[in-house]
Amino acid sequence: MSTEKLLTPGPVCLHPAARKALAAPQIHHRSQPAEKVLASLRENARLAAATTGETVVITGSGTAAMTALATGLFAPGDRVWVPVAGKFSERWAEIARSAGLEPLITDYEWGQAADPADVPEGVQGALLTHSETSTGVLQPLKELAAAVRARNPRALVVADAVTSFLLSELRMDDWQVDALAIGSQKGLMSPPGLGLALLGPRALSALRPAGYYLNLDRELTAQKRGQTAYTPAINLVAAAAAVLEEIMTAGLSAHLSRKQEFNERFYQIGLSAGLKPVPQEAASRSPATAAFFLPEEAPANAFSGPMLARGWRIAGGQGPLKGKIFRISAMGYLNDAELEKAYTDFEEVLRGL
Amino acid sequence: MSTEKLLTPGPVCLHPAARKALAAPQIHHRSQPAEKVLASLRENARLAAATTGETVVITGSGTAAMTALATGLFAPGDRVWVPVAGKFSERWAEIARSAGLEPLITDYEWGQAADPADVPEGVQGALLTHSETSTGVLQPLKELAAAVRARNPRALVVADAVTSFLLSELRMDDWQVDALAIGSQKGLMSPPGLGLALLGPRALSALRPAGYYLNLDRELTAQKRGQTAYTPAINLVAAAAAVLEEIMTAGLSAHLSRKQEFNERFYQIGLSAGLKPVPQEAASRSPATAAFFLPEEAPANAFSGPMLARGWRIAGGQGPLKGKIFRISAMGYLNDAELEKAYTDFEEVLRGL
Repeated sequence: MSTEKLLTPGPVCLHPAARKALAAPQIHHRSQPAEKVLASLRENARLAAATTGETVVITGSGTAAMTALATGLFAPGDRVWVPVAGKFSERWAEIARSAGLEPLITDYEWGQAADPADVPEGVQGALLTHSETSTGVLQPLKELAAAVRARNPRALVVADAVTSFLLSELRMDDWQVDALAIGSQKGLMSPPGLGLALLGPRALSALRPAGYYLNLDRELTAQKRGQTAYTPAINLVAAAAAVLEEIMTAGLSAHLSRKQEFNERFYQIGLSAGLKPVPQEAASRSPATAAFFLPEEAPANAFSGPMLARGWRIAGGQGPLKGKIFRISAMGYLNDAELEKAYTDFEEVLRGL
Repeated sequence: MSTEKLLTPGPVCLHPAARKALAAPQIHHRSQPAEKVLASLRENARLAAATTGETVVITGSGTAAMTALATGLFAPGDRVWVPVAGKFSERWAEIARSAGLEPLITDYEWGQAADPADVPEGVQGALLTHSETSTGVLQPLKELAAAVRARNPRALVVADAVTSFLLSELRMDDWQVDALAIGSQKGLMSPPGLGLALLGPRALSALRPAGYYLNLDRELTAQKRGQTAYTPAINLVAAAAAVLEEIMTAGLSAHLSRKQEFNERFYQIGLSAGLKPVPQEAASRSPATAAFFLPEEAPANAFSGPMLARGWRIAGGQGPLKGKIFRISAMGYLNDAELEKAYTDFEEVLRGL
């Protein structure tokens, strides 16, 4: 259908283990092989996020997981801090409002990292964005969570880890992060359509039944028994479980180092060509994607066009950064030769402009 | 992973066109190939359901589509008629309550069809179950819808068509059915994880924004532009679109006849062996699945065990019918040889008992 390869910050090129799982015949979700992949995905996700809590698998996107967390962990009227510094932190604010919560928003320039000093008192929770995919900024999640808890001992810290899971270090329990939302089409190198909600011990205590389809409490009860409340996207569960199993078996920390190094190479190539990164500080570059401002007066497709001509799809900007930036990501699966080719093509395209 | 073939009433054996789509490299949801499959699925689903309205594709199960319809088409406090005659009509009642609606329930014995004479006055809508998968009963949707509208001219008729779509005749506009919920893992012969909401002209007028993730109004706005509100399960969209395209090109009515005939053969084999069908009347047998009572004192796995030993998974009963019935379905894709083998094995297993 399409021969282009994705260097977009999700969806990404599929891991071979995902492709193998997707090529298998349909399995029934009430069968032993299905229970096995569900259990494997739940257990390995919990280990990868370093929590003693639970994983809830959601048939829906990462946004479905975010919505389920906002409605399942808070009650209408609850005040939640939302530092807004890009499209996905804006989404948290929208989700909070839609759930009847009262978001206390601190606005940052897109490209800036949220500042722990800005955490207010008097909130029941915080909705954070670990890796803000729209700007390529990795937020200081550990420091933000510590500040939230220091000023609001009973508050729940919930983070969008959609593009940090399996890409950047995540230590839920150590960092006092109570819940995470994850999507299948990023670090899991699987097709989109599956969300994960990670719940730490305090989130498990706070969880209450809310809504019908996106009801984490009901799902968790079913999933602890090896089932799901409703028919799950079991093919996507099998794909994500297979990829995660491989990553965990090979070693998560080596995987994270490699992903960071891959991303840093894109940054080095862009910096050498004189491009300005979107993240304001080098320390806040998310390993999920490199993000650069386009040169002054360059058209939006200045790089995406030539890259596509070479068979690579990269991404543009979103919201106020539309037409002003581009994003290139090594989050997906590329073999060594493909990866080298991606770097070479990127370098040549930048030189060509 | 598993060599068993599914004769369950969903999920089902995948159509070759779905398997081919699933084997393709990941495409980006903001790309021309993605827009093409989304448009194709939306248009063909509308045509297959015979409405001038719209299809909204939902990343979630059929239950997600049901939930989105209940919240998007009705307001809290609305009274809706729900004839309950099995697990999935029970689910409508639960969804209605969860959405703050007031369900007026008429209870039927599981295996019975709902009676148009029971339709009350004074309701804002009806939540019907076209094919009640838990009992194998096809409800008289056309007659029920006519009765709802005759007694409640402004009421909206919403039906769960999860196991009637592409299996039994469906004429939304002619029958005055305003909306349908559909899942990908039944007549579409694709993996689970995708829902469709079909909206006829009156439902389109009534649609209002509700919720965040399962917001049909927001999704429809995006999908009319060839996009989706959030990252869609585009691989499943591609699979379902490819299958539906093949069915529509080959001819829907011939397809429906064939599926009905396949199912009727299971009924004939069971009847010849002296088994009692779950649907109380022959005329109300859904083409989605044959459902039989187990012989008195037979264990729950009397047939499922021997069928599994021959490589076929069939389904048991749900709710009050658990351990009392079994269900066998030709809803999925089987080539001629596989289908004949399924019938022969079924016959031999029944004879063996």
